Amino acid sequence: ANKSLLVLAGDGIGPEVMGQVRRVVDWMDRRRAVSFDLAEDLVGGAALDAHGVPLSDATLERAKTADAVLLGAVGGPKWDDLPFEKKPERGLLALRKEMELYANLRPAICFEALVEASTLKPEVVSGLDIMIVRELTGGTYFGEPRGIFDLPNGERKGINTQVYTTHEIRRVAAVAFELARKRNNRVCSSEKANVMESGVLWREEVTKLHAETYSDVELSHMYADNCGMQLVRAPKQFDVIVTDNLFGDMLSDVAAMLTGSLGMLPSASLGDPDETGQRQALYEPVHGSAPDIAGENKANPVAALLSFAMCLRYSFDLAEDADLIEEAVKAVLAAGVRTGDILAPGTRAVSTEGMGDALIAE
Amino acid sequence: ANKSLLVLAGDGIGPEVMGQVRRVVDWMDRRRAVSFDLAEDLVGGAALDAHGVPLSDATLERAKTADAVLLGAVGGPKWDDLPFEKKPERGLLALRKEMELYANLRPAICFEALVEASTLKPEVVSGLDIMIVRELTGGTYFGEPRGIFDLPNGERKGINTQVYTTHEIRRVAAVAFELARKRNNRVCSSEKANVMESGVLWREEVTKLHAETYSDVELSHMYADNCGMQLVRAPKQFDVIVTDNLFGDMLSDVAAMLTGSLGMLPSASLGDPDETGQRQALYEPVHGSAPDIAGENKANPVAALLSFAMCLRYSFDLAEDADLIEEAVKAVLAAGVRTGDILAPGTRAVSTEGMGDALIAE
Ligand SMILES: CC(C)[C@H](C(=O)O)[C@@H](O)C(=O)O
Ligand SMILES: CC(C)[C@H](C(=O)O)[C@@H](O)C(=O)O
Repeated sequence: ANKSLLVLAGDGIGPEVMGQVRRVVDWMDRRRAVSFDLAEDLVGGAALDAHGVPLSDATLERAKTADAVLLGAVGGPKWDDLPFEKKPERGLLALRKEMELYANLRPAICFEALVEASTLKPEVVSGLDIMIVRELTGGTYFGEPRGIFDLPNGERKGINTQVYTTHEIRRVAAVAFELARKRNNRVCSSEKANVMESGVLWREEVTKLHAETYSDVELSHMYADNCGMQLVRAPKQFDVIVTDNLFGDMLSDVAAMLTGSLGMLPSASLGDPDETGQRQALYEPVHGSAPDIAGENKANPVAALLSFAMCLRYSFDLAEDADLIEEAVKAVLAAGVRTGDILAPGTRAVSTEGMGDALIAE
Repeated sequence: ANKSLLVLAGDGIGPEVMGQVRRVVDWMDRRRAVSFDLAEDLVGGAALDAHGVPLSDATLERAKTADAVLLGAVGGPKWDDLPFEKKPERGLLALRKEMELYANLRPAICFEALVEASTLKPEVVSGLDIMIVRELTGGTYFGEPRGIFDLPNGERKGINTQVYTTHEIRRVAAVAFELARKRNNRVCSSEKANVMESGVLWREEVTKLHAETYSDVELSHMYADNCGMQLVRAPKQFDVIVTDNLFGDMLSDVAAMLTGSLGMLPSASLGDPDETGQRQALYEPVHGSAPDIAGENKANPVAALLSFAMCLRYSFDLAEDADLIEEAVKAVLAAGVRTGDILAPGTRAVSTEGMGDALIAE
């Protein structure tokens, strides 16, 4: 049967970059031994405008039944003043939670042709290849109680709850260990066990799982503040980093920025495999909706395209097709083709479409 | 009356670097129009070994009654396996909480002579001068409920609570606005208001206080993950950053590492002024106890010394004396005198003592 893909292009530059992904999907349909059924729907601000909610029940249902979801980006100034529960981001968070996408894979790769784009010295980031595994359905993002409460003295109190269970920690750590085995066999687990009991539990459970099942993988532990420092000081010391939802949000953004090529970085969010081995999955670029350049045919579609490559690799086990896309990206970069965000002296500026053309030609 | 200083040298390199601070205090006593009564006591692992607790009640009492506390560093592998409640860090956290040191000032300055020590490109960090104001007595560090609990199914659950009240947010924001007025008049407030209600409250209260009292200061808001990114991308865009305890822990460490001179960075932790205008205050280097080089007369005492300069400035209003120390540091660096951590081709290696000598000579 054909693979079913649900495209949720979202807001800002989302629709533009997903347009280029569609072109590549079409190309694959025609040229490779794989076929896709591609459907589209709304999420984020676009869904708010159409349905008054950032994610409709119908869309969620379609996302759950699709073989994989490809998301563009959500959010923008237009919806910034909406109350918390209505913001476009809630659509994305609801997808993560309802699809139980607990493992967020964020590669931070420094592309050789783009080493100079980093604010870090070339020798610090050249060859960088880190995989951050961020827990995505627990912790402070979803813990209860939460909210803003009035105090008797007329003041207010804002509360969020960081909470993790054994099960939640073990399943995401297992993903990290499995990935490490296919990479350089090293996992660094990061928390604040010196300050937070949830971090103590995290460290203990990761350590136990390691001893039980993954003692062949090298495991280290690092406080999250130090991990942020070490990412700046010597990022190449890391192979796989596993961490919670909130620390992962911050650390993966710092790691992404080290590479100097935010417009190039994909991500995958995965759930548990079902009986057939298929995981619920959502793929999205790390960059945001970039409202400042939206609609101008300027955005870099590579992150979205590499997210599709991750989809081929992780959801459909089509490593060769994924390689094809990744090689095309490298070739196009090597040829000096650049969107505005990665433009450098001696390279050639192209539009979003132009980048799509170059990639398909490759 | 003499100013009373309590020195808590702590663990690892703490005693060595504080030794050099003592020498400078003595020098000031003799050469400047100010006198200090200096007492010493134990904290962290040192206190654990002596008294079985990381901070004794007697020490806490002395800290509260001193005009200012100068702390070295706490922690080390010797105490790493102790249970959560006994760890050396608890001593430091108890001091912060019991002395109500809610405003943690962490300057991230890139010293001109050390620009090359940064892993970032010189043009990105040269001239960098950021002040991070981190809330230090609230949030996830101290919120209740907290702990590790057994679940009926045999699993465990780790909980921490992020909580902030109006009052806690306003008082630390006020410190940030006041500092900004003496600097470049810009405050960036950082949270995750897109995900956490405590962040929504933070943003609202900072905005209100700004409108009421500090509308002359330029205020912006930035999500904490983006703030981590922006620190790597273009750190000079910031003047003062104000943020909560946990985000402040991470962001200030990333900012510190940008400067390439962790061994150079001081911090101040301040409470509310009393009737006489005096604040409870603790000063400590940003670096940790560095057990790997402890006792080897290798550590850089400059961060501890600049922490003492902050003490002169903030606790005793002795700006001239503080300038004297800061100028001596710059002169010594310009003369190419370096401890091992900042050694570079063409500079002269000195010991902890040697650095103290050079600074006192200046
Ligand atoms: C948009 C926002 C809710 C989201 C998050 O905080 O998780 C984003 O920063 C991310 O990292 O995917
Ligand atoms: C030692 C530790 C408890 C502390 C913290 O997390 O606050 C340290 O990282 C700091 O930033 O001062």
